[in-house]
Amino acid sequence: MKLQVAIDRVKLDDAVRVANQLDSVVDIIEFGTSLVKDYGLLAIKHADLNLHHAQLLIDLKTIDEGPYEFKQGFAAGADILTVMGASSVDTIKKVYEIAEAQGKEMFIDMMGINQEQREQISTFNKAIYGIHHAVDEEHGFDAVKTVADFHQKFPEIARISVAGGINLEVAQELAQQGIVESVIVGSGIMKASNPVAAAQKFMEVMN
Amino acid sequence: MKLQVAIDRVKLDDAVRVANQLDSVVDIIEFGTSLVKDYGLLAIKHADLNLHHAQLLIDLKTIDEGPYEFKQGFAAGADILTVMGASSVDTIKKVYEIAEAQGKEMFIDMMGINQEQREQISTFNKAIYGIHHAVDEEHGFDAVKTVADFHQKFPEIARISVAGGINLEVAQELAQQGIVESVIVGSGIMKASNPVAAAQKFMEVMN
Repeated sequence: MKLQVAIDRVKLDDAVRVANQLDSVVDIIEFGTSLVKDYGLLAIKHADLNLHHAQLLIDLKTIDEGPYEFKQGFAAGADILTVMGASSVDTIKKVYEIAEAQGKEMFIDMMGINQEQREQISTFNKAIYGIHHAVDEEHGFDAVKTVADFHQKFPEIARISVAGGINLEVAQELAQQGIVESVIVGSGIMKASNPVAAAQKFMEVMN
Repeated sequence: MKLQVAIDRVKLDDAVRVANQLDSVVDIIEFGTSLVKDYGLLAIKHADLNLHHAQLLIDLKTIDEGPYEFKQGFAAGADILTVMGASSVDTIKKVYEIAEAQGKEMFIDMMGINQEQREQISTFNKAIYGIHHAVDEEHGFDAVKTVADFHQKFPEIARISVAGGINLEVAQELAQQGIVESVIVGSGIMKASNPVAAAQKFMEVMN
């Protein structure tokens, strides 16, 4: 199981510094939506990001104008870009084609979509399907159960990721469960006094 | 009926220049999502935008982390910010409170949501409800009919906006129809050889 660390709501310089520190430890570095909306893809493109090991996911949360956003996002250095499952199917088709043509990856954020919408977008066989609990939602989230339910409904979906308040205990349970390809941790690592040490702990319990 | 002009997929300097030129002509200047994602809110905040007449709408397309994004967006100078109707209801409630507290406005982009979702978010009585045809969608869009249908289903919603391939003829029909508060025009103005003259033509047919 891969570890994706989400960097959000910090200064771009700090995001770049911690990303370079985490590069050799984690599998995927996520530059969160706040970095995109605060600083922009052009600033990220020109930032001093030197990743040698980890992939870069930029959480674009594309919901329209997909081809434009995906071209800009990949030009900024992303290996993986996100599109909302709530987009039109046409948007998702178009960005999938761009990702495929560039040898890059598409991550579908399934936040807030219902079963019918999930069925409509379940056929992108190389895509990563992200189970995502909204930061703003007040009620809790059982990641292990949600993953099990999703896998039962969509056994044909091979690549699943999960995000939303994942701590060490939940990460370990998800690893034992063996369904998801990657787990996304934000504040569990980024709010630790030592993010590199915190990321290493996650890697230990997951492997 | 108000005219909102959407500025998208241009350099930030060009966006600022044309916005300042259009300020006295149109009612609302929209800085589109592409400007946010390419350049970031901090660059928009520090841009040389001097609007004396028009309101500034920044098309943030918030779908999560609402309070953070709305604070950043209003700090960047926006009078109106957009949130996706596909967000969790908690997100929309939170950003509405921030808009109200700051004496600013919330625009709900209803792109891609179904009747049930519309019903869940129809109670924000000061919000602007945006009927929005996705740029990426392949099939056409009848703005006048869509507006009439929406108004029939939600007669209690006072503030409606519409976007999606609006030309002079459709703008005139919408003005005669008398339902929407504002109409959003992008390429119909921005791709004209003289955007100010094009905007003036829209204002003429609408009033």
